[in-house]
Amino acid sequence: MDNSPARGTRDLLPATVAVRDHVLARITEVYHRYGYQRIETPAIEDINRLTGGQGGENEKLIYKILRRGLTEPPATLDEAVDLGLRFDLTVPLTRFYGNNQAVLPLPFRSFQFGPVWRAEKPQKGRYRQFNQCDIDLIGEETVLAEAELIEATTEALAAAGIPGVTVRLSDRRFLSALAEGAGIAPEAQGGFFITLDKLDKVGWDGVRKEFVSRGMAEETVEGVQQAITALQGLDQAKLADTLADAVPGLAADVIADLVATTGALAGMGELSWEFDPTLVRGMGYYTGQIFELSHPESASSVAGGGRYDKLIGRSLGRDVPACGFSIGFERIVDLLDSAPQADAVAVLHEADVPVAQVMQVARELRAAGRQVTTIKRRGKFGAQLGRVQEWGYTSFVHVKSDSIADERPLGARETS
Amino acid sequence: MDNSPARGTRDLLPATVAVRDHVLARITEVYHRYGYQRIETPAIEDINRLTGGQGGENEKLIYKILRRGLTEPPATLDEAVDLGLRFDLTVPLTRFYGNNQAVLPLPFRSFQFGPVWRAEKPQKGRYRQFNQCDIDLIGEETVLAEAELIEATTEALAAAGIPGVTVRLSDRRFLSALAEGAGIAPEAQGGFFITLDKLDKVGWDGVRKEFVSRGMAEETVEGVQQAITALQGLDQAKLADTLADAVPGLAADVIADLVATTGALAGMGELSWEFDPTLVRGMGYYTGQIFELSHPESASSVAGGGRYDKLIGRSLGRDVPACGFSIGFERIVDLLDSAPQADAVAVLHEADVPVAQVMQVARELRAAGRQVTTIKRRGKFGAQLGRVQEWGYTSFVHVKSDSIADERPLGARETS
Repeated sequence: MDNSPARGTRDLLPATVAVRDHVLARITEVYHRYGYQRIETPAIEDINRLTGGQGGENEKLIYKILRRGLTEPPATLDEAVDLGLRFDLTVPLTRFYGNNQAVLPLPFRSFQFGPVWRAEKPQKGRYRQFNQCDIDLIGEETVLAEAELIEATTEALAAAGIPGVTVRLSDRRFLSALAEGAGIAPEAQGGFFITLDKLDKVGWDGVRKEFVSRGMAEETVEGVQQAITALQGLDQAKLADTLADAVPGLAADVIADLVATTGALAGMGELSWEFDPTLVRGMGYYTGQIFELSHPESASSVAGGGRYDKLIGRSLGRDVPACGFSIGFERIVDLLDSAPQADAVAVLHEADVPVAQVMQVARELRAAGRQVTTIKRRGKFGAQLGRVQEWGYTSFVHVKSDSIADERPLGARETS
Repeated sequence: MDNSPARGTRDLLPATVAVRDHVLARITEVYHRYGYQRIETPAIEDINRLTGGQGGENEKLIYKILRRGLTEPPATLDEAVDLGLRFDLTVPLTRFYGNNQAVLPLPFRSFQFGPVWRAEKPQKGRYRQFNQCDIDLIGEETVLAEAELIEATTEALAAAGIPGVTVRLSDRRFLSALAEGAGIAPEAQGGFFITLDKLDKVGWDGVRKEFVSRGMAEETVEGVQQAITALQGLDQAKLADTLADAVPGLAADVIADLVATTGALAGMGELSWEFDPTLVRGMGYYTGQIFELSHPESASSVAGGGRYDKLIGRSLGRDVPACGFSIGFERIVDLLDSAPQADAVAVLHEADVPVAQVMQVARELRAAGRQVTTIKRRGKFGAQLGRVQEWGYTSFVHVKSDSIADERPLGARETS
């Protein structure tokens, strides 16, 4: 019989869940101290909301739910479907805010952790159901939002066992000004960003070729490369002047915001950061600063986010400034090996010991707050002890009908 | 714009999530001490597994997922669907055990908490997405399983703030013997149980009428009523003899098991229990003892479970004894009012205070492990303080560009 989970999904075994729960608990504790409050939205949303254009490419990957009560196939596929599984936590959050904003604090600090579904081509390390871990600050128009999201997330990752991240920061308004300065029409900027985003993979040669094939003149490409190179590896003191020089069309408030955020980051002690003029981030809805956290042991970023001041307005009818940061939860748990080994006692009982007596032994050990499990003796003693140790138990008590042996650590030899 | 969640589902606001998280953490902590290990299975399962007959009436309520990649409507509805949302955690558990048993401990103690979906008619307090909270002990053939599940769950509920439950216990084998003694054919026993289950709602008059309408003779009905009445309110010492008298066809090992379980329950200190010959429980897969927990403040039971020794065999190909207990999570959180009020500081800052300075004030307060949130000053001071207090903050600090006022408790008057 085939007991595999649905294609592209997976079962999570106890040891895996223990790591995930440990990481989540540490992250939750830190976000809670920053005042982020956990909310939950349903896994299913109206199909029209999911296909409304907020989700970009993810809208092609929706699990669609058949209308209930159909008795025969509908005339069209659209008629067949009324709901879908959410593909991220941002679309539900904007609906949630629209639905509940009258009773929420202002600003509202949201923490979400939960599964999302995308019918992607299955590949190593990628699953069709996976968990997202987002914080969002809604109603804060200044870069206090950006700086706080970065500080809280950096601290949360360190608490989860992932210290030493580097912040990479940019701004969509900077990217737009750069593209505009290069004579790229607003509607073609998406393609410009997609090419720029490939710099760390294909290098300047590859990027230049792609720019040219997009119709940019050689000298324009040269200018873009010079502007970007000038902006890489800048320290905070030089950021404002270099930005103004490299991108003459850049508005003063964008520069002031970047100076304010980097200034706040500089005040966060050990935190390392850089302005990264090649950072793009995929989603179309970002309107201001964008940022990612890199870690030396991870090829891709471990967290990413940005400001999206125009998104909530689509649900609410009036704009509310907002900024979010999403931890790549599945990615960071892969960086961590295992949860700390906990004290766990196995009460190994012979089959003829009465149930009430076995339970009493376990109960007395458990009274001290310890983790205690009963297991019936079977097979060869040494072999069973080996298995029990493999299962994560650290000591055992052997209960016979007429005697209870003292507790012994597992790993030590038993010759009973 | 309509920002309601999908019909029959709901958004969970921060205060609600806080109660739920608090309850779940207490339950988890107790189950962990009993050695139950949390596992996770995907929300989506193969549609053929979900409609394989384990789910009873729930199989009519499945959210079905459209095959990906369809370009036109399929010829039949069956062809349109390949997956569905799980309607319980037991079907996935039996698949999980079949898929992973080689690497799991024996016996295996499973703890599951997660959402399930049922397309039920929306009604007050019933939602189409809700959470189940199950423990299962797989591979334990004796009533140690039943007794331990009951002890652990009773303790978990007490830890969550719901002490004082009563255990009601019966056995499917007792019910079958009772029905058989009344001359009811095995295939008609389901209907017999359904009627008996209504006793607390319709009383003996109603039950007698329904038995007769099912074709039972008046004197048979009289015999069943006498047997059941004799078995209600029994103490443990009289249980064995009374059972043997009232249901002559009952096997000795069923009586011995009930004596062993009630003996173990009697050893659990304050726990109150009763043998309840009218307890049925809905699912068809139970094979032995069944049990529920009642609480004086809840009309329906707060937890229920039983032994299902033949269910895992359907996935695994060989029978493995198993017993499970499910807490009515949504029901018990409704019995509880709110999570304990936590210390939470609002840093109220005027708009002209630099971001880095506001963050530094928050950072210093947070260093002591406290929950600290920044909120911009807006509107009338007293009115804003009132709102901040409503949002759950317990104190505030007022930050101006040239001064920081001492922390003050919320609720006290401010005349700044």
